[in-house]
Amino acid sequence: MRDPPSDEPPIYRSFPDLVATLESILLRNGTSDEVARVLATNCASAERDGSQSHGLFRMTGYVKNLRSGFVDGRSVPNIRDAGSAFLYVDAGNGYARPALESAMPRAIGKARSAGACVLAIGNAHHNGPLWLDVEPFAEVGLVAIGVVNSVTYVVPHGGRKRLYGTNPMAFAVPRMDGQVLLFDQATAAMAHGEVAVAARENKLLPEGIGLDASGLPTRSPQAILEGGALLPFGGHKGSSIAMMIDILAGALTSSNFSHQVDWSAHPGAESAHTGETIILIDPTRGNGSLRMFTQRIEDLVAAMADAGQTRLPGERRLAARKLAAERGIAIAPAMWKQLMVL
Amino acid sequence: MRDPPSDEPPIYRSFPDLVATLESILLRNGTSDEVARVLATNCASAERDGSQSHGLFRMTGYVKNLRSGFVDGRSVPNIRDAGSAFLYVDAGNGYARPALESAMPRAIGKARSAGACVLAIGNAHHNGPLWLDVEPFAEVGLVAIGVVNSVTYVVPHGGRKRLYGTNPMAFAVPRMDGQVLLFDQATAAMAHGEVAVAARENKLLPEGIGLDASGLPTRSPQAILEGGALLPFGGHKGSSIAMMIDILAGALTSSNFSHQVDWSAHPGAESAHTGETIILIDPTRGNGSLRMFTQRIEDLVAAMADAGQTRLPGERRLAARKLAAERGIAIAPAMWKQLMVL
Repeated sequence: MRDPPSDEPPIYRSFPDLVATLESILLRNGTSDEVARVLATNCASAERDGSQSHGLFRMTGYVKNLRSGFVDGRSVPNIRDAGSAFLYVDAGNGYARPALESAMPRAIGKARSAGACVLAIGNAHHNGPLWLDVEPFAEVGLVAIGVVNSVTYVVPHGGRKRLYGTNPMAFAVPRMDGQVLLFDQATAAMAHGEVAVAARENKLLPEGIGLDASGLPTRSPQAILEGGALLPFGGHKGSSIAMMIDILAGALTSSNFSHQVDWSAHPGAESAHTGETIILIDPTRGNGSLRMFTQRIEDLVAAMADAGQTRLPGERRLAARKLAAERGIAIAPAMWKQLMVL
Repeated sequence: MRDPPSDEPPIYRSFPDLVATLESILLRNGTSDEVARVLATNCASAERDGSQSHGLFRMTGYVKNLRSGFVDGRSVPNIRDAGSAFLYVDAGNGYARPALESAMPRAIGKARSAGACVLAIGNAHHNGPLWLDVEPFAEVGLVAIGVVNSVTYVVPHGGRKRLYGTNPMAFAVPRMDGQVLLFDQATAAMAHGEVAVAARENKLLPEGIGLDASGLPTRSPQAILEGGALLPFGGHKGSSIAMMIDILAGALTSSNFSHQVDWSAHPGAESAHTGETIILIDPTRGNGSLRMFTQRIEDLVAAMADAGQTRLPGERRLAARKLAAERGIAIAPAMWKQLMVL
C-alpha cells in the first residue's frame, strides 16, 4: 500500500498537528467543518494506531471520492428513533463516521436504558478502521459488535466470482481499569491491500488466497486483482460470516449489498456506498455489575495467556498508540509529500 | 459417533412416534413432564434434520448426565425481565432448551416492541443443535444470532493447550414465503465427533486440525483426543470468534467459560454447564417492512447462485427434513437398540 521503505527518516507529527493538516485538506475538498473535523480525527487516529491500510493511505481516496461527487462531504446525518433498542441513521450519502458520532450518545443511552441497542447506519461510505467504531462503546462499559459491508472482492465458498466485500467484523468489551479487549478482522483470506503489495513486489501468494478471472485457484496477486477474487478466510465458515455481514450491514440498513455498489457514473471514485451495523449490549444485565463482568474478562485473558497465547488481539495497535503518544506519529516522507498535494 | 453402517435396513419412525419414545426414556430417567416433552421434541427434530452428532446419538449423554445428578432434569427456568431489550433466564442447572422455550414468547415480544432483544440464558446445559434455537425466531420474521460456549477442546491461536469450546454460532434470517436462510457452525477446525470417527477408523486427519498433548501439530486423531486440542477454524480469526463466543455466552450470562466446566464430582457426567446468548433484531426497523427485507434476502440468494455457490447453508438439513416428512425418520437398528436400554 505504502511506497517501499526508503532511507529517509520519518517525519514526526503530534496528533493535534496531524489532525489540523488533514482537516485543512478535507475542507479544501469541499467538506463541511463538522465532517472535516470528524474524518481528520478518525484518519489521524488510525495512523496513530499503526494502520498501514486505514490511515493516511486513505486520504487520496477521500479526496477523489469527494471531488467526483460520489460521496457528499456536506451531508448531515438524519437520526431516526426506531424503538427503545433501535436507532437508524441515514448518512445521506456521506461518510459513515460522522453519522456514527452524531448518534453515539443516543445509542449509548438506549443500550443503557433498554439493555441493548442496534445502531444501523445506512446510505453511508465507511472508510476508517472498524476498531475505532466499537472501541468508544467498550470504553463506557458496553459490549459492541460492529460489521460493515464493503465492495465486492470475495467469492462465496464454492463459487467462481466476486460477491461479498472484505466485510470486517469488530468486537470490543470493557476490561478492568477502563481498558478494552478488541478484535477487528476482515472475512477475506488476505487483506486486499496486502495482495496489492505482493503484486507490486512480484511475489507469489500462499495457496488458498484467491481465484483468477476464470474462477480457478491462483497464487498470482495480479490475477486476483485483475478480474479475479479473494477467497473468504476459513473456507465455508468464513463465507457464511461474510454473508451474515452483508445482510446485517447491507440489508438491515436498507443499503447496498457489497456487489451492488456502483461508482461508474463518478470517474475517479471508488468507495463502499453501503451500511454499518453496531450491536450494543449492556453487560451488567446478566451480571449484576460491570465490575463482575470485567473481572470475568480478566479471568479469560489470564487463561488465554496460560494456554500459551502470547499476544492478545489488538495488542499491536495499543503498542503503536503508546509509542505515538511518546514521540509523535511517524510518517514516511513520501506519504507526507502525497498529502501536501491533495 | 454412530456405529459403522451395517447391512441391516433402517427402522422408520414417524416424528410423533419418535418423540413419544424419547419422552418415555427421559421420564424414566427423572425429568419433569415439561422437560421430557421439550427435550424429546428437540432431539427428534435434530434426528429428523439429518444431524449425525446432535440427534439420537445424544440420548445416552442426556441419560448419563441426568442419572449422575450433574444436570437437573426437574429444574424450572427463572425468567428475569432485565430491560425493554434484555431477558435473562436462569436455567437452574437444567438443559438450555426448556429455558429457551419458556422465554421465547417474551423474547419475541420484546424484539418486536423495542426493535431488538438480547436473550441471555445462564446456568444451563446446551445439548441440542443450535440451528433449532435460532430458526423459530426467523420463522416469525426476526433476525437471530445465537452463540453457545461448551467444553474446552480448542486451543487459542498460537497457544499450546485447550481453552475454548467448539463454540458454535448460528445465524437465521427470514426469507419470502416464511422460509429461513440459516447457518450453524462450530469455531473448531473440525467437529469433535468427526475426529472421534477418524480415530475409530484409524485414519490420519488433514493438516491444521489439531495439536497433540505437548502442543505440537499432529495429524493423529488419537493424539488430539488424548490430551491434545483442536485448532480453531481459519487461524487467528477463528480464534477471535471463539473468544467472542466464550464471552457472549459465558461471561454475559454469568455462566462458566468453556474451560471452567467441571463434572468431576459427578461420575458418568459430561455436559457443558455454560450459557447461551441469542441476539434478536427486528429487520423492519431499518427497512420499512418485512417484505422489503425478505426481498433483499432473495436478491442476495440469487446473487450467491449467480456467483457459483451451488448450495446454500442449511440446504442439506431442509432436504433431510423433507425426506423424513415423506417416509418417516430413518434410524439405524444399532442406534434403536441403544435407545431401548436407556
